[in-house]
Amino acid sequence: MYNFKNDYSEGTHPNILNKLIETNLVQQLGYGEDEYAIQAKDILKNKFNNPQATIHFLSGGTQTNLIVISFLLRPHEAVISAKTGHISANETGAIEATGHKVITVETADGKLNPVAIERALQEYALKPHVVKPRMVYISNSTEIGTIYLKKELEDLAACCLSHNLLLFLDGARLGHALMAQDNDLTLADVAKLTDVFYIGGTKNGALLGEAVIFKDPHLAEDFDYVLKQRGAMLAKGRVLAIQFLELFKEDLYFELADHANKMAMKIARTVKFKGFSFLTNSTTNQIFPILPKDMIAKLHENYLFFVWKEIDDDNAAIRLITSWATDEQYVDAFINDLKQL
Amino acid sequence: MYNFKNDYSEGTHPNILNKLIETNLVQQLGYGEDEYAIQAKDILKNKFNNPQATIHFLSGGTQTNLIVISFLLRPHEAVISAKTGHISANETGAIEATGHKVITVETADGKLNPVAIERALQEYALKPHVVKPRMVYISNSTEIGTIYLKKELEDLAACCLSHNLLLFLDGARLGHALMAQDNDLTLADVAKLTDVFYIGGTKNGALLGEAVIFKDPHLAEDFDYVLKQRGAMLAKGRVLAIQFLELFKEDLYFELADHANKMAMKIARTVKFKGFSFLTNSTTNQIFPILPKDMIAKLHENYLFFVWKEIDDDNAAIRLITSWATDEQYVDAFINDLKQL
Amino acid sequence: MYNFKNDYSEGTHPNILNKLIETNLVQQLGYGEDEYAIQAKDILKNKFNNPQATIHFLSGGTQTNLIVISFLLRPHEAVISAKTGHISANETGAIEATGHKVITVETADGKLNPVAIERALQEYALKPHVVKPRMVYISNSTEIGTIYLKKELEDLAACCLSHNLLLFLDGARLGHALMAQDNDLTLADVAKLTDVFYIGGTKNGALLGEAVIFKDPHLAEDFDYVLKQRGAMLAKGRVLAIQFLELFKEDLYFELADHANKMAMKIARTVKFKGFSFLTNSTTNQIFPILPKDMIAKLHENYLFFVWKEIDDDNAAIRLITSWATDEQYVDAFINDLKQL
Amino acid sequence: MYNFKNDYSEGTHPNILNKLIETNLVQQLGYGEDEYAIQAKDILKNKFNNPQATIHFLSGGTQTNLIVISFLLRPHEAVISAKTGHISANETGAIEATGHKVITVETADGKLNPVAIERALQEYALKPHVVKPRMVYISNSTEIGTIYLKKELEDLAACCLSHNLLLFLDGARLGHALMAQDNDLTLADVAKLTDVFYIGGTKNGALLGEAVIFKDPHLAEDFDYVLKQRGAMLAKGRVLAIQFLELFKEDLYFELADHANKMAMKIARTVKFKGFSFLTNSTTNQIFPILPKDMIAKLHENYLFFVWKEIDDDNAAIRLITSWATDEQYVDAFINDLKQL
Repeated sequence: MYNFKNDYSEGTHPNILNKLIETNLVQQLGYGEDEYAIQAKDILKNKFNNPQATIHFLSGGTQTNLIVISFLLRPHEAVISAKTGHISANETGAIEATGHKVITVETADGKLNPVAIERALQEYALKPHVVKPRMVYISNSTEIGTIYLKKELEDLAACCLSHNLLLFLDGARLGHALMAQDNDLTLADVAKLTDVFYIGGTKNGALLGEAVIFKDPHLAEDFDYVLKQRGAMLAKGRVLAIQFLELFKEDLYFELADHANKMAMKIARTVKFKGFSFLTNSTTNQIFPILPKDMIAKLHENYLFFVWKEIDDDNAAIRLITSWATDEQYVDAFINDLKQL
Repeated sequence: MYNFKNDYSEGTHPNILNKLIETNLVQQLGYGEDEYAIQAKDILKNKFNNPQATIHFLSGGTQTNLIVISFLLRPHEAVISAKTGHISANETGAIEATGHKVITVETADGKLNPVAIERALQEYALKPHVVKPRMVYISNSTEIGTIYLKKELEDLAACCLSHNLLLFLDGARLGHALMAQDNDLTLADVAKLTDVFYIGGTKNGALLGEAVIFKDPHLAEDFDYVLKQRGAMLAKGRVLAIQFLELFKEDLYFELADHANKMAMKIARTVKFKGFSFLTNSTTNQIFPILPKDMIAKLHENYLFFVWKEIDDDNAAIRLITSWATDEQYVDAFINDLKQL
Repeated sequence: MYNFKNDYSEGTHPNILNKLIETNLVQQLGYGEDEYAIQAKDILKNKFNNPQATIHFLSGGTQTNLIVISFLLRPHEAVISAKTGHISANETGAIEATGHKVITVETADGKLNPVAIERALQEYALKPHVVKPRMVYISNSTEIGTIYLKKELEDLAACCLSHNLLLFLDGARLGHALMAQDNDLTLADVAKLTDVFYIGGTKNGALLGEAVIFKDPHLAEDFDYVLKQRGAMLAKGRVLAIQFLELFKEDLYFELADHANKMAMKIARTVKFKGFSFLTNSTTNQIFPILPKDMIAKLHENYLFFVWKEIDDDNAAIRLITSWATDEQYVDAFINDLKQL
Repeated sequence: MYNFKNDYSEGTHPNILNKLIETNLVQQLGYGEDEYAIQAKDILKNKFNNPQATIHFLSGGTQTNLIVISFLLRPHEAVISAKTGHISANETGAIEATGHKVITVETADGKLNPVAIERALQEYALKPHVVKPRMVYISNSTEIGTIYLKKELEDLAACCLSHNLLLFLDGARLGHALMAQDNDLTLADVAKLTDVFYIGGTKNGALLGEAVIFKDPHLAEDFDYVLKQRGAMLAKGRVLAIQFLELFKEDLYFELADHANKMAMKIARTVKFKGFSFLTNSTTNQIFPILPKDMIAKLHENYLFFVWKEIDDDNAAIRLITSWATDEQYVDAFINDLKQL
């Protein structure tokens, strides 16, 4: 059985393992003050040309989302998210558990835009009987595989600025977004257009780890307190720093995402060729083909994947995820099986 | 400069690195459902003979403390801790951030006992104008290096039972406690006498990780929800499971703690021999010698350690911590330097 | 200008004022232990024949909602509400501020039913990545003036029981529901079919006050702690108890609600007679006529009320609320103005 | 039995009842936007000469403390309080329930001073492993009847300013403090020297109500959101406003406090005359005489009061509280009984 369920089925890229081995017995300060953290942060700042940025390394996406959001909001403030957004759909009420409402917006493609934002603002206007929207949360790529184009992100950033909303980008799969064939955003664009964003390691080759970047250091002041308070400050912070050091000292991060995307697109081409359609218009490493249920049953004999949504009595959308570690040989096998069904 | 500041200055035991390498590309389910987790849990349950126990792997001590405590307490309930307890002194109000008061008790030796518990209960008796004590939190070894003897833990457990208090043991340094020369507790005793406890990996050879054990599975029901909600559920849970698999498949965990203790005791003997005293009566890997300040200044030329507490104008207590990775050659060098000062 | 904006524009029924005067200098114990509280609770328990019930008096609806819900839910549990429910639409994220997600359901009439509940349960099934639904919150009468019939509440109660969900009824306007012309529920039915509900005083003649009733005293255990903790325990609890003593020692509560309903229905008949329709099918003291905008503008010259929703370019729905204190003379004047427009 | 247990055993001053009757059927806007609120705020601002101040009316002390503190602190920030402070000793962990640690300081007289503050700052200096002190909470008069002199409050304010700490004064019994025979503070001084304080109504003649005053309106921005969110915004806000309108339109508030103090001091003189001492040096309406236990038993036959603290086998301190409503005839009776014992 080959697993297309997610992009965290394997361990980590060998470069990271090697660096862990190489540095293993070098004594370092704890709690994120190790020298690898300093190096990794310098490399990242160079990548997006902002020496002022404040960077912290956390362990996972839910942890990062809940800490960033609860750190930046006052008690009566809320965050706007697409209904499909990870903080709305997949995090066991993690944001609400910190005291904040998630205002959800229905979308066709998992993406927010100024029209949707302004509609939400109107719905939450009756001060003080409703929460005060203060942040916009987006994911790139989104939870359904779509991406933001540069113009879309610029418009959203302008909308946020004009309404005094902070823009927070969840980059759990940022690599896949930036390496998509139709992408026109750069890492530097993301760093410039958002107030805070993170670069996901876990889903793109790291053992664990997300790198949070605050554009303006004033916004990040005292962030280390809440890292500790929420249980996110690892004693051996070196483990997190080494992930990003290896992923970004060259362009490994982007190469890994590119591989994942290519594997998904290879399958997608066959799906299209066979005349099937997709639930969403993904150009990244998650695709949602709509297939006959008997074909799905056949594929399930050799592959693990989620059945995402029933379409009608005979058809359903499945979710296939590829990753940095996906073996092309199994992709080809899957394609062959698909062709023969 | 050799670092005696803490027991997390190095990476991890080579066995763990090797297992990470060996299993790296084996596909596994995410979120703690990997096969290494199943194996590690079985091994642990055997170690303390409780097949009913519910075990979860978390990343660090503060995270574990805040999740266990907020999971088990209702909104108006509080936890009793020694003032030196980690949740009181070192976790940036992590417990209060989940809504719960930490009732602190002054102690001479960092340990709680029935008399102290009952005094706290009397102080918090004026229902409903004060919080309701519902849990007792202890650390073994404590934050100042002392340990609980079997009789002490039995008495505490009986006291908790009679007052309907849950007993929670922070075992961030449980290995060091159980391997102390004067210890008479076993891992099975700890598992039997407490309602919930954890075995610390981070400070005893793991890259990261704490294993939480609930004696009664009913008490642990729904715990996975809060793991996710608090951002503690790693996508690649395998990383945590592998730590405990390697540490416990043989007795590596205990051997590592034993080494750490021996290194500290070796230094302690010289301190005593030289006629100096200690701030606390430690038999584990943290010692607090009281030394003349000029001697401390000299030692600081070659060694990193904390000055813990000023004693008088001329003397101060320092904290020296040894670990599984402490190199005996530097211990000997330190001893030599101490002898010659 | 006569005010039809809400049902709390005036002070309180004279009987309550008189009782406040009569008892003013009688010394009483504080914090809800006064003798008026004992009397009022006994009267209420008799009204719905449950001597076991546990009753507490709070100050307002939002306070009651947030305390009851956060008291009964564990950290990972959530409450299901209609999207129009007060806790979803009008309480500034009060429930989320206590750490709990409000799962919202779109409804046509402001009411929940088993189909809607089961759909929500399906949407929140992917344990542990989503919150665990544990409570159903309904309002009777609803925020848009509709009421639950006995069969509807019985079905909902059975649904909750079968899914291990607590049923909580917000009775801020319970009097108006029970006195509606088409109502077939009794106070005793409500007390029997719900796990916890409250009788609203503020919107039906009290100066302030809501009476919370737990059917099963075990469910209410320790509730006084959270009353104090959330700032809801008045030192002079007598003020709250006297409201309910006067409202329920005879049937004043129901008489006042009946008056409010009759005033609204009197206006509603004219609206219908004039050929206009309504946004919702209300039989209680809140009505939502859809009127031409120029007619609304004219009415606004002499009456205060909210324009609730734009229907099209020419028409809008307005909200008119009557109360125990509504002067029939102004109702008649409004009707006359309506007839002449 | 006459009750000396507290200062909230009776209802309210007749002027307030009369105003409630007089205004009862005048229609007003809800949620604190009534005209009595406007009037009461204007009167208060004049009393302390700060037209910029922002004023809100809340129901009780615990509610006010928890809302003000959680509104002003960020998640990692804490408040410093005397161990005897109401937020530390009597509010069921209300502050912790909003996520914030209360740093407690032992005091001899219930009062904080710069030395104590600076010691606390030193104890909480190890950023980011401890919370960040950001506010100082004091009560005047204190929970044990003592008061702050002008010089003491000035020194504390200067200390807070130099350490970037907000100064918050709990004035649940502010009237009694300002009318104490040895007091040299004015209401205007308090309004000038603190960042935020409140004037307690409940314990000085109001039915309920505390008036919170923010010196700087920027600090109070969005405060109405949290009032609503925490359940403190009464629909009939007029009830609260009328209390302060009547208490402050003349100097009723001060006259009532003066009466309470005089009644306590009258008893205190007899206690001293009889050769007994006091647990605290109170000049306000709470006194703590130390009496032989058999005398206490005798007094308990006719009077209700708390036995506060055992002093030795034969003696205990009791707490006697007088109020605006205390009948001098019972004070004289108590004095007579005391003289004859």
